[in-house]
Amino acid sequence: MLDYFFNPKGIAVIGASNDPKKLGYEVFKNLKEYKGGKVYPVNVKENEVQGVKAYKSVKDIPGEVDLAIIVVPKKFVKDTLIQCGEKGVKGVVIITAGFGETGEEGKREERELVEIAHRYGMRIIGPNCVGIMNTHANLNATFITVAKKGSVAFISQSGALGAGIVYKTIKEDIGFSKFISVGNMADLDFAELMEYLADTEEDRAIALYIEGIKNGRKFMEVAKKVTKKKPVIALKAGKSESGARAASSHTGSLAGSWKIYEAAFKQSGVLVANTIDEMLSMARAFTQPLPKGNRVAIMTNAGGPGVLTADELDRRGLKLANLEEKTIEELRSFLPPMAAVKNPVDMIASARGEDYYRTAKLLLQDPNVDILVAICVVPTFAGMTLTEHAEGIIKAVKEVNNGKPVLAMFMAGYVSEKAKELLEKNGIPTYERPEDVASAAYALVQQARNVGKLEVE
Amino acid sequence: MLDYFFNPKGIAVIGASNDPKKLGYEVFKNLKEYKGGKVYPVNVKENEVQGVKAYKSVKDIPGEVDLAIIVVPKKFVKDTLIQCGEKGVKGVVIITAGFGETGEEGKREERELVEIAHRYGMRIIGPNCVGIMNTHANLNATFITVAKKGSVAFISQSGALGAGIVYKTIKEDIGFSKFISVGNMADLDFAELMEYLADTEEDRAIALYIEGIKNGRKFMEVAKKVTKKKPVIALKAGKSESGARAASSHTGSLAGSWKIYEAAFKQSGVLVANTIDEMLSMARAFTQPLPKGNRVAIMTNAGGPGVLTADELDRRGLKLANLEEKTIEELRSFLPPMAAVKNPVDMIASARGEDYYRTAKLLLQDPNVDILVAICVVPTFAGMTLTEHAEGIIKAVKEVNNGKPVLAMFMAGYVSEKAKELLEKNGIPTYERPEDVASAAYALVQQARNVGKLEVE
Repeated sequence: MLDYFFNPKGIAVIGASNDPKKLGYEVFKNLKEYKGGKVYPVNVKENEVQGVKAYKSVKDIPGEVDLAIIVVPKKFVKDTLIQCGEKGVKGVVIITAGFGETGEEGKREERELVEIAHRYGMRIIGPNCVGIMNTHANLNATFITVAKKGSVAFISQSGALGAGIVYKTIKEDIGFSKFISVGNMADLDFAELMEYLADTEEDRAIALYIEGIKNGRKFMEVAKKVTKKKPVIALKAGKSESGARAASSHTGSLAGSWKIYEAAFKQSGVLVANTIDEMLSMARAFTQPLPKGNRVAIMTNAGGPGVLTADELDRRGLKLANLEEKTIEELRSFLPPMAAVKNPVDMIASARGEDYYRTAKLLLQDPNVDILVAICVVPTFAGMTLTEHAEGIIKAVKEVNNGKPVLAMFMAGYVSEKAKELLEKNGIPTYERPEDVASAAYALVQQARNVGKLEVE
Repeated sequence: MLDYFFNPKGIAVIGASNDPKKLGYEVFKNLKEYKGGKVYPVNVKENEVQGVKAYKSVKDIPGEVDLAIIVVPKKFVKDTLIQCGEKGVKGVVIITAGFGETGEEGKREERELVEIAHRYGMRIIGPNCVGIMNTHANLNATFITVAKKGSVAFISQSGALGAGIVYKTIKEDIGFSKFISVGNMADLDFAELMEYLADTEEDRAIALYIEGIKNGRKFMEVAKKVTKKKPVIALKAGKSESGARAASSHTGSLAGSWKIYEAAFKQSGVLVANTIDEMLSMARAFTQPLPKGNRVAIMTNAGGPGVLTADELDRRGLKLANLEEKTIEELRSFLPPMAAVKNPVDMIASARGEDYYRTAKLLLQDPNVDILVAICVVPTFAGMTLTEHAEGIIKAVKEVNNGKPVLAMFMAGYVSEKAKELLEKNGIPTYERPEDVASAAYALVQQARNVGKLEVE
């Protein structure tokens, strides 16, 4: 179901162009990277697009076409869609804008498109969207740069915001599994896409940017099921009155009362993010197993970040674990006298990779600890390497291997890049800000609660 | 007063080293860049340090020494300080740790250091600190990489956090005027440093990372005066019980009740930041003039970011301006029919630099607008340049020139870097996140209220 959108056997780009100023140029250029099937340019005027034989109509294409990306001017969309139906296309992404978002007449035209599609058994994403990506299949059916590969499926109701987030995450080395710009959601909406994503393997969490949901009941019904399988994190825009008005003039969808949304999210197990970074931080946590409780151990080589993280965890309703006497004694045995051995464990600035290894191991083994947050301001002095602290954590996690989630906060800008990369490669999510790592820990606890795994509270 | 710390005529690095594993190596290496006066290495064993003639004692230095950086082992600190006094040194930065933060005995030793210093008329920053920077004088008296040049003076009670923030801001291209790691604040504390920074030209705002204040009354008295001249933004760590406990084992200072701090900050006009990024976002806003009111106009080429920013402004108690009919009509005259011309003005994705110019100009001229927030997801299609939108804003601000603050949110990761650079060069602070630009707008309004400039609310 819907897999023809994300792993299509053949793709037609209708409106593929040789003119770099046109969206159809970018879309076809991006899709040429796809390896899962043939990609055909369709252009009424050209014989070749970007060096590839072009077809006048999708119907002229000799091979099978699962997916069509429509970037033709608005007045041609309807006929193009009919041709797709006649060709036997299964999924259509309509990038072209000017439909439901412009008012009643546009809404009517949009409904007509959906009727045509359904008549032929096709489904539509869009119109008025940026397109879709599946980084695990090298599929970039958008006119923007492809996201980094990761484990979070991101569905955005704002195309430009989605693009901004993709660009931002590329810079920050954060990955997505899929990116879906849903546009006006004339046909496929959050609910059906979530339902599809619930059963895929590479999507570990689902992140939603929502301005307005059309069918609240359907959303809740689906979300209730999906959140039992996989975390769903929602960032809802238009919470304030002026925000809601802005949302309405943006997507034409009624933003509705935030209180109603909040209640609905809570009832259906959807985790609420307040900012883009919270949404991303929470979603990225789910490469980790779910914790059995909400008791966090913090280890750090820098006092300040430890204090700020303790504050943020508290704000999120999480607790600092009371370490066992045995753990404290063993920490005391090798950490310097100036170190703080209660939680947060402040190993002070002189801590080496070996200290990170031994401390992480002890904290993971402590039965009072449910989650480990490992903090490091990567030092540039005393001959320490940039990755030894990360290596220590990774080694400890591998050795202990008792199913407790580990989150890392390495807050040293460019200095910590290599360490972060290494941690991510080893499946440990990394953050740079106390509020981000606290959001991540909170999300793990909330999802454990959702699925009934939380034993200690 | 205290200028000998930041523009010294001569500097001695006592404990300067040839061993790259020692802090004294980094400090001397960093200080060699200083051009405002001579920098002398002092080392009891070496004749040369990093190719520069070394002295056995600070007293052997032939020239004048205003500032001494002490990085010798703890047991030598006291004698070294006496020698500094005999030499006529004015300011001493003690990087060496192991004093007040370790307990009562350390506190006693620390008090002794202060007594010695005062006997000779010297002042101390530290001990147990990372050092100080004055980017406008090329002065980096620390063992970490120098911060980017900017207009914010940052005083940090956590050295490692300060370092982490410096590294982070280098990566994010955010600048500081000064960085002061105050360590244990045995002598100089927040109050006296703020007092000094109140009258400097290059420091436009003062940002504080606070774990605990020793003399609250003095802090408040000074802050009340300083905040009338210049904004002071505080990030207080240890707000929660577990955070406060962690802070106490970190700096040995009592974090105290957050409610008391909050009241004190409010009474003395100190702006409260909740996160590191809020602190930086707020502080960086003050290259802008203060607004006369709290009515914000948003212009954007992307609906979603406009909605999120409207939400965040609302959360901060700011209002979206009701645009004049005339403004709306004129916007309608050149923006496409699908654009939203009420506030937020959504010029949609096709907006070019010229649209940014005309829209910014109209919004700045509207008497109902106190602050302009210009948002852009920099497009990578339709042949637009990466900087035309930024150029449009800059041109409008220059032409209108009516003293209204302008803040930019360019949220497109690596794609928006050039545009952001250009805006910053032209004095317009740039942000990447709705909550950051909203914090900045909030800070401007709060400071206008502080100094009695706010007319409209």
